[in-house]
Amino acid sequence: MPQRLKKQSEMAGLPPGTLIYIGEKRLEKTKITVINYDQQHYEKRTINTIDECFGYRDTSQTTWINIDGLHDIDLIQQLDEHFGIHALVLEDILNTGQRPKVEVFGNYIFVVLKMIYLSPDGNDIISEQISLIVGQNYCISFQEKEGDVFGPIRKRIEENKGRIRKMGSDYLAYALLDSVVDNYYIVLEKFGEKIEALDDALINNPGLETSREIHKLKRIMIDLRKQIWPLREVLASLQRDESKLIKKATIVYLRDIYDHIIQVMDNVDTFRDMLSGMHDVYLSSMSNKMNEIMKVLTIFAAVFIPLTFVAGIYGMNFKFMPELEWRWGYFGVLGVMAVIGVGLLFYFKKKRWI
Amino acid sequence: MPQRLKKQSEMAGLPPGTLIYIGEKRLEKTKITVINYDQQHYEKRTINTIDECFGYRDTSQTTWINIDGLHDIDLIQQLDEHFGIHALVLEDILNTGQRPKVEVFGNYIFVVLKMIYLSPDGNDIISEQISLIVGQNYCISFQEKEGDVFGPIRKRIEENKGRIRKMGSDYLAYALLDSVVDNYYIVLEKFGEKIEALDDALINNPGLETSREIHKLKRIMIDLRKQIWPLREVLASLQRDESKLIKKATIVYLRDIYDHIIQVMDNVDTFRDMLSGMHDVYLSSMSNKMNEIMKVLTIFAAVFIPLTFVAGIYGMNFKFMPELEWRWGYFGVLGVMAVIGVGLLFYFKKKRWI
Amino acid sequence: MPQRLKKQSEMAGLPPGTLIYIGEKRLEKTKITVINYDQQHYEKRTINTIDECFGYRDTSQTTWINIDGLHDIDLIQQLDEHFGIHALVLEDILNTGQRPKVEVFGNYIFVVLKMIYLSPDGNDIISEQISLIVGQNYCISFQEKEGDVFGPIRKRIEENKGRIRKMGSDYLAYALLDSVVDNYYIVLEKFGEKIEALDDALINNPGLETSREIHKLKRIMIDLRKQIWPLREVLASLQRDESKLIKKATIVYLRDIYDHIIQVMDNVDTFRDMLSGMHDVYLSSMSNKMNEIMKVLTIFAAVFIPLTFVAGIYGMNFKFMPELEWRWGYFGVLGVMAVIGVGLLFYFKKKRWI
Amino acid sequence: MPQRLKKQSEMAGLPPGTLIYIGEKRLEKTKITVINYDQQHYEKRTINTIDECFGYRDTSQTTWINIDGLHDIDLIQQLDEHFGIHALVLEDILNTGQRPKVEVFGNYIFVVLKMIYLSPDGNDIISEQISLIVGQNYCISFQEKEGDVFGPIRKRIEENKGRIRKMGSDYLAYALLDSVVDNYYIVLEKFGEKIEALDDALINNPGLETSREIHKLKRIMIDLRKQIWPLREVLASLQRDESKLIKKATIVYLRDIYDHIIQVMDNVDTFRDMLSGMHDVYLSSMSNKMNEIMKVLTIFAAVFIPLTFVAGIYGMNFKFMPELEWRWGYFGVLGVMAVIGVGLLFYFKKKRWI
Amino acid sequence: MPQRLKKQSEMAGLPPGTLIYIGEKRLEKTKITVINYDQQHYEKRTINTIDECFGYRDTSQTTWINIDGLHDIDLIQQLDEHFGIHALVLEDILNTGQRPKVEVFGNYIFVVLKMIYLSPDGNDIISEQISLIVGQNYCISFQEKEGDVFGPIRKRIEENKGRIRKMGSDYLAYALLDSVVDNYYIVLEKFGEKIEALDDALINNPGLETSREIHKLKRIMIDLRKQIWPLREVLASLQRDESKLIKKATIVYLRDIYDHIIQVMDNVDTFRDMLSGMHDVYLSSMSNKMNEIMKVLTIFAAVFIPLTFVAGIYGMNFKFMPELEWRWGYFGVLGVMAVIGVGLLFYFKKKRWI
Repeated sequence: MPQRLKKQSEMAGLPPGTLIYIGEKRLEKTKITVINYDQQHYEKRTINTIDECFGYRDTSQTTWINIDGLHDIDLIQQLDEHFGIHALVLEDILNTGQRPKVEVFGNYIFVVLKMIYLSPDGNDIISEQISLIVGQNYCISFQEKEGDVFGPIRKRIEENKGRIRKMGSDYLAYALLDSVVDNYYIVLEKFGEKIEALDDALINNPGLETSREIHKLKRIMIDLRKQIWPLREVLASLQRDESKLIKKATIVYLRDIYDHIIQVMDNVDTFRDMLSGMHDVYLSSMSNKMNEIMKVLTIFAAVFIPLTFVAGIYGMNFKFMPELEWRWGYFGVLGVMAVIGVGLLFYFKKKRWI
Repeated sequence: MPQRLKKQSEMAGLPPGTLIYIGEKRLEKTKITVINYDQQHYEKRTINTIDECFGYRDTSQTTWINIDGLHDIDLIQQLDEHFGIHALVLEDILNTGQRPKVEVFGNYIFVVLKMIYLSPDGNDIISEQISLIVGQNYCISFQEKEGDVFGPIRKRIEENKGRIRKMGSDYLAYALLDSVVDNYYIVLEKFGEKIEALDDALINNPGLETSREIHKLKRIMIDLRKQIWPLREVLASLQRDESKLIKKATIVYLRDIYDHIIQVMDNVDTFRDMLSGMHDVYLSSMSNKMNEIMKVLTIFAAVFIPLTFVAGIYGMNFKFMPELEWRWGYFGVLGVMAVIGVGLLFYFKKKRWI
Repeated sequence: MPQRLKKQSEMAGLPPGTLIYIGEKRLEKTKITVINYDQQHYEKRTINTIDECFGYRDTSQTTWINIDGLHDIDLIQQLDEHFGIHALVLEDILNTGQRPKVEVFGNYIFVVLKMIYLSPDGNDIISEQISLIVGQNYCISFQEKEGDVFGPIRKRIEENKGRIRKMGSDYLAYALLDSVVDNYYIVLEKFGEKIEALDDALINNPGLETSREIHKLKRIMIDLRKQIWPLREVLASLQRDESKLIKKATIVYLRDIYDHIIQVMDNVDTFRDMLSGMHDVYLSSMSNKMNEIMKVLTIFAAVFIPLTFVAGIYGMNFKFMPELEWRWGYFGVLGVMAVIGVGLLFYFKKKRWI
Repeated sequence: MPQRLKKQSEMAGLPPGTLIYIGEKRLEKTKITVINYDQQHYEKRTINTIDECFGYRDTSQTTWINIDGLHDIDLIQQLDEHFGIHALVLEDILNTGQRPKVEVFGNYIFVVLKMIYLSPDGNDIISEQISLIVGQNYCISFQEKEGDVFGPIRKRIEENKGRIRKMGSDYLAYALLDSVVDNYYIVLEKFGEKIEALDDALINNPGLETSREIHKLKRIMIDLRKQIWPLREVLASLQRDESKLIKKATIVYLRDIYDHIIQVMDNVDTFRDMLSGMHDVYLSSMSNKMNEIMKVLTIFAAVFIPLTFVAGIYGMNFKFMPELEWRWGYFGVLGVMAVIGVGLLFYFKKKRWI
Repeated sequence: MPQRLKKQSEMAGLPPGTLIYIGEKRLEKTKITVINYDQQHYEKRTINTIDECFGYRDTSQTTWINIDGLHDIDLIQQLDEHFGIHALVLEDILNTGQRPKVEVFGNYIFVVLKMIYLSPDGNDIISEQISLIVGQNYCISFQEKEGDVFGPIRKRIEENKGRIRKMGSDYLAYALLDSVVDNYYIVLEKFGEKIEALDDALINNPGLETSREIHKLKRIMIDLRKQIWPLREVLASLQRDESKLIKKATIVYLRDIYDHIIQVMDNVDTFRDMLSGMHDVYLSSMSNKMNEIMKVLTIFAAVFIPLTFVAGIYGMNFKFMPELEWRWGYFGVLGVMAVIGVGLLFYFKKKRWI
């Protein structure tokens, strides 16, 4: 996020519609895959130049154009000319700091959303921007890097499983959205496990590290919330979409994703509440530990300091100290010390400190 | 909940409408009970195969089909064909991680809600998903496991008590909802008792365990809130339902449940506020305890350290220490010590530490 | 509240409309008072059986039927038959765990609200449910026990003071509501005094008891808020009431009560903010106290431990310790000790600890 | 505020519309000033009895009747008869515990708002209720005591500066509102200075007094918010007023006050946030101070206790202690002690405690 | 801000529409730049007196009048007469304590927004008020001081880059708004770096200074939020503007700025959450440090105080102390001491304190 903020601050002052890709360059070469299908027909091609796919626009089949890698700005720009995509939309596709949103234009719908991955070390999340342009009989998807999250959908189209071949580009868009949202469950499950592990650590050996970890996870949850929450509005907008690109049969499916997002948010909120509670317990346990330490100190000090004082008295070198001459003086004093010591221990026992 | 999250994350990538039961398998065999009644007539059967109940659909009586156990996916799927239930609805019935919701279709209403139980050890809540499909003259209820919460309703139908035999499937659905909501009071009462016990423990002997317990109960309350709160919206939707499945006479009853849910939420919020207050009192009592410990330490140290120092002085071995030769030196020093000690005790008394 | 929760949980499973009184039985015998009046006429009777008042229903005068004590279920049930009150309304009247609410039926309005009293020991609030049924020319009020809060209204009717005899049953209902809301000021004033006393205690001698008291008062304020806040909605509903039971001339009076409720809520919120601030000050003062204690300990320890060490050195029994032989060794060491002690005291003075 | 609450609780049970002034009596005699003006004409009179001003009601000029002092209830009551003001409005004028509000009647608008003053000792705020009745060609303003806040407006009318003489009673009402809102800036500026002074004290010498002061200011800010915030709604209501008393040309001025109120609220919120931050810093500095104290104690104790122990060993009186006989034993032990002491100091230096 | 509050409090009592500049005088002389352009034509002039630009108002080209420095009140006043700007708008331009807002008048739109700069020492933000008056074919911009933020736009107009020369005054206003919002990214990036540096300091060497810094940054974030948040509403208003000054083609660009503001707010909120988390970690680390200190103290005290006591016993001067005569008494006691010391160290090791 700070990375993106930096890039965005460098763009300040450029005219609107200037196409600059602000993410990292994650792929060598932009990869374009075209899948063209209807109920009978299926064709899949990997093409090199974007103009090879322009022909599909006017067929009666549904065409899915998937573009992996956003750094090839020329390529993106050509979409403007052939599919009539607005310059600001293209700018949004490249500017990967967008919030999830939907924008409805005359003959296409533009959807931005966030794919969430675990970072390689498993301690953080990485979010990748996915953009969709949904037209009458085509759907163009943009990914920052090649990912396998759309793999199962490709397979379903190829093997003609489920309804997907029977329905149009709006259902395809639904399927893509659905696979992104399903992925959130996987990420959340990992964090659920981390939080449970942290809860164990909190009971067994809480330290400053635990506190830091709790806050890191909390921040990740806040981050997740920010990336996912606007999707709710996106789905709601799509359901009440007035352009005729979303067919009525698809709306019930969108409502299903809507429910899933609410479920994901519920889980995120539960995790946040758990982490807040863990922070409170951490503070309690710190304060408790302190009490324990102070009790140990107080018991040692309170028992031995008076005894040492008594010993100090009979260590004085006065000429006339009658007790020193007594036959059983020493043992008497030892006895008195024992009584004092045991008495104090009983006192602390009664206070339930021991 | 994490259990369900796990299952849901495993489902990622499957086509929508794929029927998979994500809860635990809690019953050996799915149990189907059919009750068919009107004002004169009453019939109750336990059937083995789902197709035995298809005939009831077209009778003029009201039919209640109760299905305990959701793992038999074939059975669920047959409902699709005979009652015309949408595949996504069936998916939601099986996917027991739903939030309470209502969905109105042309000829039936689909309601999901949560039954709340105490866990066997009484320290946590277990929630079970109850799904209802309410048609013109039938009502299908789905439970994860056999439960006795609908028992009183069965009895009321059998014995023709109250209005239930005089009214249709919408009133039956109301009665089922009502019995689920009534159950919340029972669970809440148990937690009310636990919170009172904890409040006692907080006064008598607060420890780290108390703090943990407070947070656990708080989390359960948050959980409860999440399971129950959406029900409010469900009831509100049913009241303003535009399909003609809910008759006007039933709406006043639904308003009554609505009030009950608000009452339950009020109680849950009261408990949360109490627990928050208890956490604050816990922290205060920790801090108070620490002050007590430190006072004991300080009094012991401040009284005896100066005295030990005095004894140390006369324990020195200097050749020329005139006091050591004095006849009453020893007793004089003892007197001085007593004066110092008593003086310090008075000082702490004045400070109200003793 | 837990008392009521308990009763409510026992009711789970009973058919709706079952009449059970869940409050305590606070009166030996239900007391029914009937006041029948118009501008010229005034009649007051205490009746024994409810049927004696049925005749008043069809007179042209306004009739106020006040029922103290809700445990006589038969009596309540008869209202159903003669005044046409819905069974669920009667259930709500008896189930004294209701939130304030208003329900508009065809020919009567049902209002539930809460009378707040101080508990006998003055440390808690007791809330009593007041239910009103407002018909065309009658108003039935239900109280859990005999109370004197409606006394002034009876007197105003009897002595024909103010507008009350000139106006109908809706104005009577207004007057009853108004007297309940006015009572909130009295209860709040008492708590205002308690909070001020607590604020004094917080300055003079804060202890764990103060912290508990703060939280108790805070909980009472939250409780009060919950009992009073929904009344706002009740008043708003009455003002926009579409049945013709509330006359236009009365609406301006309802707006006045509405303002009073907002004022009461403002006061409750002010008290809550004050109590939150007091909790913060309490924590600060605890932490301050601890600092004071630690300073005393540190000063004593830091001054005398080094001195004791010096004394310890010259208490060693080495054969060859030249200082011990010196003529002024003892006094020299005493001087050194004085210098160290005074130096340390200056050091702490500079640190502003003394 | 508690003062007012007390009075209000004493009013409980009185019939609505009973006129009782609940504020303090702040003036000997109610003072009535009448200013009658149009573009050409100007007349100012101080009158003794309210009936002297009734004649102005039907002139074509604008009349401003300013009433200082609310304890003369007879006088207020006469307004009822001659200007047709509703009894409840008069009650609200006298009951100075109102929230800011606006009520639109047929032929006049009633506005309540709060003038805020600094208390004489500058440590608290005093709020005075200002009520306005705005009619077709007159405006009556009520103040609890004589104030100079409307002085500049009188002067503007007298000297015919700005637009005020060209416009009607609605613009006059605007000018009065504006001068009240402008006054908030003055009060806020004083508190801004207090907060800055407190922030300095927090850095230099934070004590329990600082914490109390922070909370006191916070409470004042909350109070201010409550007094000012509802004004926003008042202004919004006036802008969309449907009676024809507010002319279109005046609405743009009301929007200007609206903006000012938002600015004032922004400042109040900023101050609240600053005070919250200061409370956090206070707690941090307490905790820091404690750490400092503990470090001093620990360093003294940890350095000298081991040394005293060593000295103690050679103070023992065993017959056979070879070291005691050694020629350099004493100096050797002193050396060992020096090494231990310096070593410990290095250890604490490394820990950055020194 | 307090600076401005002060000025505003001095303005209290002045008639509305009085023009007083409340900011600092930041420029010697007001500087007026006029740029007049259409697709073919381009002219740029710096003029001395405002009347030189009045002629441009009626040309068919677009005219941008930029005014740097607001202290020349006469100049501002002349705009009233020639462009028909309302006196309250001019007052708002000079009163630089405005919140961002938009006001739509018949033939022009008035927009106020805030430019944010870093203060010269980089530790705070300075906000400057930018006002825009957008007419049919002109746009007047007001800045408090000469700034270079509009430089790139001047260049784009001059060099005819992008769309700007092809579109009208509404697009120019958009471009100005856009450059202000882009600037927020730059400021935010700087603070992002500061927060990261602070996070490092928090791990390595947290002190009271860190806590203060956290709160300072938090306050700046709250400030930023307040300055930027209302812009959202401004943009929303402009998009649904009903005057015909904003052309349809420009609205899609305004939506783009709207998205940017949401992004900026997201970043500000993320920073706030991070700072809150850092405060919590700071408190945890303070509490942890305290525990560390106490452990050191307790270990030293608990190990050496008992040993010193033992040494004290054998330092007593009783005549009859059999152990003193023993041949190996001394070494025996040393051994016992070693055992006690090592034992205690083991005990603390087991407690994981070492």
